[in-house]
Parts: sequence; C-alpha cells; structure tokens
Amino acid sequence: MNFPSKLVEEAVLEIARLPGIGKKTALRLVLHLLKQPADHSVSLAHAIVKMREGIRYCDECFIIADTTSCTCRRPSTDETIICVVEDTPDVLAIQNTGQYKGMFHVLGGRISPLEGIGPDELQIGSLIKRVTSSESEVTEILLALSGTMEGETTSFYITRLLSDNPVKITTIARGIPVGGELEYADEVTLGRSIAMRTLFSHES
Amino acid sequence: MNFPSKLVEEAVLEIARLPGIGKKTALRLVLHLLKQPADHSVSLAHAIVKMREGIRYCDECFIIADTTSCTCRRPSTDETIICVVEDTPDVLAIQNTGQYKGMFHVLGGRISPLEGIGPDELQIGSLIKRVTSSESEVTEILLALSGTMEGETTSFYITRLLSDNPVKITTIARGIPVGGELEYADEVTLGRSIAMRTLFSHES
Repeated sequence: MNFPSKLVEEAVLEIARLPGIGKKTALRLVLHLLKQPADHSVSLAHAIVKMREGIRYCDECFIIADTTSCTCRRPSTDETIICVVEDTPDVLAIQNTGQYKGMFHVLGGRISPLEGIGPDELQIGSLIKRVTSSESEVTEILLALSGTMEGETTSFYITRLLSDNPVKITTIARGIPVGGELEYADEVTLGRSIAMRTLFSHES
Repeated sequence: MNFPSKLVEEAVLEIARLPGIGKKTALRLVLHLLKQPADHSVSLAHAIVKMREGIRYCDECFIIADTTSCTCRRPSTDETIICVVEDTPDVLAIQNTGQYKGMFHVLGGRISPLEGIGPDELQIGSLIKRVTSSESEVTEILLALSGTMEGETTSFYITRLLSDNPVKITTIARGIPVGGELEYADEVTLGRSIAMRTLFSHES
C-alpha cells in the first residue's frame, strides 16, 4: 500500500494495530479526520490517553472503574449473590438484561494452561476472600463463564476451592438460544438442553 | 448503553464519532487498549495528533503531503498529462493500478449545488492555471471523477473552461467491470458500454 505522506502512514499503521481494523479502514478513518476540524482529532487522542492512564480496577469486584467510584455497590444491589464473569463486557451484557441485581466479580480471564494463564493470574483468591470474610453476606455464587473447556475448568476449580463452604454455587443455563432453531444447534448443546430440561411454564 | 466508568464512556463516544464505528465496536477497541501496555494508547494518540497537525496539501497538485515533500513530481513522472480526481484515495487507487505515470490534480470534491459546493470551493481555478501557464507541458487532461451526476457536472464544467485551449480532454472508460456479469449491470452502464464499444483484441 502506498501512502501519500509519512505522517498518514504512521497514523494508519497505529490505527491498524487495533483489532478488526485493517489498513484500508484505517486510511479511511485518517482521511475522515483530515476533513474534520483539527480539534476533533485532538479530543479523540486526548480521550484515549486520559482513559488509558486514568482507569483503575475496583479493589473489590475488579470491574473497570474511574479513580473515584465503582458501580459495584449501589443501594439497590443485592449483596447476597456474586456473579463471577471473565471480563468487564460480560458485566455490561448481564446488567443490560435487567435480570440480575446482585454483585459482580471479574476474574480477568479464564484458566488456560495453553496460554500460560493459571489461577494465580486471575482474581480467584480475592473471590474466595470475599466469600469467606467475616462480613460477607454472600449465600450464592453464580458462575457466568463462557461455555468452553477453559470456562468449565475455571468453574470447576472455583467450585472445588469452595467445597467446604456452605455457599450455594449456580451456573447460567446452557441450552438452545431463545428464537434458535433446533436443526442448527450443535449436538452437545442440544443434548444438554434435553438433559437439563425444565418444567414448561407460560412465563418462560 | 451503560458504561462502567466515565473515562471509558468519553473514549467510547469520541471513537464512535468516526465513520463506520458504532458504540459497541468503540467499546471493544477501548477494552483492547486497556489490555495493552499504556504506551500503545499513547503512541496511537500521538500519531493521530501529529498527523492531523502536521499534514499539508501540495501547492501544486493538492495531494496530501508532509510539510517537506510531495510525491507528485518524481523523475519518472510524465509531465504531459494531468489526471483530475476528487480526493486523495482516488490518487492511491490509480497509482496502485500501475497503468498511469502522469501527474495528478486533486479537486477536493465535486460540484454539488445541493451540498453548497460550487466551483470556487474546489481546486478548479488552480487546475486551469496549471494547464495554461507558460511553463506547462500538459497536452492531456484525464478526468477520473465519479460516475454520478455531480461528477459529470464537474467534468463538464472543467471541459467548458478549457474549450479555447488545445489540450486534449479524456475521461476514464465507463462500462461493465472486468469479471462483471451482464445480467446484474444497470441499464445505463450497459447501454453506454454498447454505445462506446471498442475493437476486440486479445490483450484487453
């Protein structure tokens, strides 16, 4: 790819390092920025640096937070249940369903020996501390990890660590998606949706 | 859409102002930057600002250029022909074909009364000056504007301004794309490809 200018080339190569953005898209974005007033580019760059340098993780739930506040403890939060997820987008997805009012705990990934990620790289120890501390009101842990082998391994590991604890451990239901067609479902999901069948009700 | 942090929200909203990037994609990019070392974000932001503030347009051909150099006059450039295009990406596309060795002239858009763009907003006067100046070696102008009404209007306007000049004015061929199927072509293109038919040769 030829570039008309070294400055354009540098900006394109930087932007194209982002996931899902190739050089063509990056060039289109650069040419767009060139057509806009310069302060658009400046405020974009400023917001990125300010975000990257200002962001902290909540000491308790490890959700992304500003320096000052975390959204994990609102007055309306149910403090008897912790939903365990891999990453912050999962928190947002679950919050957007409106079906969950409890607390969260972000592990920061999942156990994956192939990628060199063991339990110590994740926020598993802090989860156990949260559950077992003397002030804890937690009675249920809802595991909402991905349905992959790594996700299941992580769920199993956490369950084993808490086996002596009276806390109830649940996991999100696996099955055919709402609106999904049976003929396109994979066999494992379909098989599990039959094994884990629930009573039919008009509300579900 | 909920955001876990004000800083994330600001960055997402800034990134989502770019064309073709929605809030979901912007959030994905932000979360990617958070997983990378901070200097990735800093160098991205730096490249954008440096590009936006450093970019100049060549005084002669109006291609995007660094402060120091424009690529419009290489020793190998054919200075008898100017290809007139709407914008810099068109220059890159034409250069990448390897079929054109002449000079370029970037108008910066096309005449569009609906959008309030008249000839004075475009680099048309400077094109006429380039062609009519005493040092000019230009014998041909190749109009490579888009095949829309606005592009045709612009081509017609330039042709009229140069009607007293001996320079030859050509336009890129319109027709069925290479590899294109006739049944999917629009009627106007197909009609024109018949009216403008060329002698068949093995090389074409």
